[in-house]
Amino acid sequence: MEEESALRPMDAEQLREQAHKMVDFIADYYKTIEDFPVLSQVQPGYLGKLLPDSAPDSPESLQNVLDDVQEKILPGVTHWQSPNYFAYFPSNSSIAGFLGEMLSAGLNIVGFSWITSPAATELETIVLDWLAKAFQLPDYFYSSGKGGGVIQGTASEAVLVVLLAARDKILRRVGRNALPKLVMYASDQTHSALLKACQIAGINPELCRLLKTDSSTNYALSPDVLSEAISNDIAGGLVPFFLCATVGTTSSTAVDPLPALGKIAKTNKLWFHVDAAYAGSACVCPEYRHCIDGVEEADSFNMNAHKWFLTNFDCSLLWVKDRSSLIQSLSTNPEFLKNKASQGNMVIDYKDWQIPLGRRFRSLKLWMVLRLYGLDGLRSHIRNHIELAANFEELVRQDTRFKVVAPRTFSLVCFRLLPHPNSADHGNKLNSDLLDSVNSTGNAFITHTVLSGEYILRFAVGAPLTERRHVNMAWQILQDKATALLESL
Amino acid sequence: MEEESALRPMDAEQLREQAHKMVDFIADYYKTIEDFPVLSQVQPGYLGKLLPDSAPDSPESLQNVLDDVQEKILPGVTHWQSPNYFAYFPSNSSIAGFLGEMLSAGLNIVGFSWITSPAATELETIVLDWLAKAFQLPDYFYSSGKGGGVIQGTASEAVLVVLLAARDKILRRVGRNALPKLVMYASDQTHSALLKACQIAGINPELCRLLKTDSSTNYALSPDVLSEAISNDIAGGLVPFFLCATVGTTSSTAVDPLPALGKIAKTNKLWFHVDAAYAGSACVCPEYRHCIDGVEEADSFNMNAHKWFLTNFDCSLLWVKDRSSLIQSLSTNPEFLKNKASQGNMVIDYKDWQIPLGRRFRSLKLWMVLRLYGLDGLRSHIRNHIELAANFEELVRQDTRFKVVAPRTFSLVCFRLLPHPNSADHGNKLNSDLLDSVNSTGNAFITHTVLSGEYILRFAVGAPLTERRHVNMAWQILQDKATALLESL
Repeated sequence: MEEESALRPMDAEQLREQAHKMVDFIADYYKTIEDFPVLSQVQPGYLGKLLPDSAPDSPESLQNVLDDVQEKILPGVTHWQSPNYFAYFPSNSSIAGFLGEMLSAGLNIVGFSWITSPAATELETIVLDWLAKAFQLPDYFYSSGKGGGVIQGTASEAVLVVLLAARDKILRRVGRNALPKLVMYASDQTHSALLKACQIAGINPELCRLLKTDSSTNYALSPDVLSEAISNDIAGGLVPFFLCATVGTTSSTAVDPLPALGKIAKTNKLWFHVDAAYAGSACVCPEYRHCIDGVEEADSFNMNAHKWFLTNFDCSLLWVKDRSSLIQSLSTNPEFLKNKASQGNMVIDYKDWQIPLGRRFRSLKLWMVLRLYGLDGLRSHIRNHIELAANFEELVRQDTRFKVVAPRTFSLVCFRLLPHPNSADHGNKLNSDLLDSVNSTGNAFITHTVLSGEYILRFAVGAPLTERRHVNMAWQILQDKATALLESL
Repeated sequence: MEEESALRPMDAEQLREQAHKMVDFIADYYKTIEDFPVLSQVQPGYLGKLLPDSAPDSPESLQNVLDDVQEKILPGVTHWQSPNYFAYFPSNSSIAGFLGEMLSAGLNIVGFSWITSPAATELETIVLDWLAKAFQLPDYFYSSGKGGGVIQGTASEAVLVVLLAARDKILRRVGRNALPKLVMYASDQTHSALLKACQIAGINPELCRLLKTDSSTNYALSPDVLSEAISNDIAGGLVPFFLCATVGTTSSTAVDPLPALGKIAKTNKLWFHVDAAYAGSACVCPEYRHCIDGVEEADSFNMNAHKWFLTNFDCSLLWVKDRSSLIQSLSTNPEFLKNKASQGNMVIDYKDWQIPLGRRFRSLKLWMVLRLYGLDGLRSHIRNHIELAANFEELVRQDTRFKVVAPRTFSLVCFRLLPHPNSADHGNKLNSDLLDSVNSTGNAFITHTVLSGEYILRFAVGAPLTERRHVNMAWQILQDKATALLESL
């Protein structure tokens, strides 16, 4: 390779030339995204057979790498941005979110303290205040009071940091030795991240109360069940300290009754966390804001802008009522990070609101999403997906072989193929087979859950390119595969 | 705004058009990066005065946003990629790393389990094996055995996950009730992330032994001091469980003696973690590999590719000897994530190796760095910075008003302006004033530390655009400001 053409670590003109190529590669990817199987069809270990077993000593060209991306990497990608992706929950990419990621990667700052890039800290505070207003959150979640918002990587980190704050707050009151007596409450529909957070924080696993739900409450947590559990625990000499409610559970988008739960939390002095990771986005529409009524009693509130809010992964928004609790649990102040702005308490240092020290300039992409689409654009985006999900629900209801098994509140439809009355497994194998059969076509990707022992199919609308024709095609595949399966029995 | 021109959430041709604009904006930023003050000179709260207090309802144009980035955001950015940045440790952006970030943001997959994009998991495993080979790590850190490598966000998360694995491993042996008796060991030069990890994990703060170091060992942990501390703790009925050694401490790049420490860890059955977050990059050069001699006894090893290895933030590489310990502490297996590949133990699900559930496709950028620069390119990059630091050290030594206060091993020079013999604060205020004076010029950015009670200036070479002329200019500023300060006394 000639000296002139060797890629430098950084060089404005070389970056310009190569990055324009990469833009075209990515635009072409979106242009052809429907040509790929949505769910990757490769077998475990496929890539090791295609790549060498050592890093090269000498530089290679970008074209070589892009050829390998096309031939070797893309077959192993499950295309979350495909319009035929209906799995898990969505993880939106958007033009604005992508541009924000580019800019953040271009500046490549590490914004742990205010001084390391004041704009990174201040834009984050401002944008979280904007969204507190857009979601009509209570005043104490704004940065102007004792609370404030912060961008975490994921909802897992959000629930972990508030659990730690709650743990340390109660231990300051009742003494450190009470750790093995702390009790946490949530429904059995709560995301597994909560149990993992408890494990990390050293909460006694036997005192993590995942209270049973069923179809009688549409899988929402019953305030009566919660009250009883707390009373029992107090009577047993234990120390209740944390309640997590969910607005839009992962399995079926159940909505826990925040007002009643908040009252119980208040009476018992529990930290009350509201996890609206998926459904929070819908609250930008006035007609869905009621889903978080009761958030006024929450100590913390979380929604993932990276799920359904057009902001590229990762970008999880957390608001807390009392930021000092968070900071008391998570602050560090080593000499090498000291500076006048921080020492003078003149600024926010978000390193003290999160697990890691380093942090990316993630507010840029969120700010760009808000500005390039506007709140109206985001509302249309949400309403469009909810309408498509309602269309799908209607299609399922029209086919008597299927059943909708939980109310559709947002853009997720939970349904199943009804089993033959004599079916030994009550249709669980049937629906699992149907799932595999659909996903192996590569033309749609759906996932599953289990509710009350029944294997359920989940159809989550939310990819930015999804249109009515994609929903209709997915339903056609489901019907065809169901027919084939039922005929083969 | 006309319907035709409204920005869609996603659209291949709109993305192409807008992203080409963003590429030019970023390339122009690098072209003019020396025109900005390295350390942002704004005052706290500056941005709130420039931005509206609500998100817009209607969409705005990209040009509007880019104008605001130029006029309002960039003045608040501290330019980590400026060639005049010598603060903290570097955080390298590179053309290859930037392209990898773009591609990752473009695909926007969430790779928690193998099935959610097999290529994301498998490329990570392959690239970490490549680097295990490049760093000559022991065989058991390769994925082919019981260990393996994983990309964490930051070194803070890396040390947290291994601390949790070590905690749970010892508690499985001695019983859960022993948590308040667990003792952790490290030197007082260890990064603050370790103490934060202990706080998160519920380790008794009084049993976090940050053993004192001084200039007699060049601020490295003394094996004798460690042995004595462990013996005392065992005699006191406590349970030693974790040792963290550092190769390249944050204050002065001290190198703890791994072989002797590893022996002590082995004898006492401690989990032995090696933190080479900054200096690990140097080990890609054969002449620096000896710095991690003794890693053969480590249970885990960490280096940050996002510091000095041309890989954009964030990308922290962690290898463990026994992945099952990590997985036992961090795995979750909710119904909605179950799939045949995972249930059959045929694949790695990296969600079980880390704190969050979701994860970005970070191996892409690391793979692109390795291919577009090659190991030889990375070696040149490292050697170039070390040579520049050696040049700077030589300049400091030639000026008798200054003193180099710790050995320069890599690319960091620790030095200070000598105080007047009658100085009441032994030069601490003098050097703090010198730091402020230099940083306020906007033409260089350096930071400080304290060693043995003395305020020390740190000069860390590592920005990808830094050349000899930038180092010389920074030294000239330091000399001029020192002259002015000394004259004003």
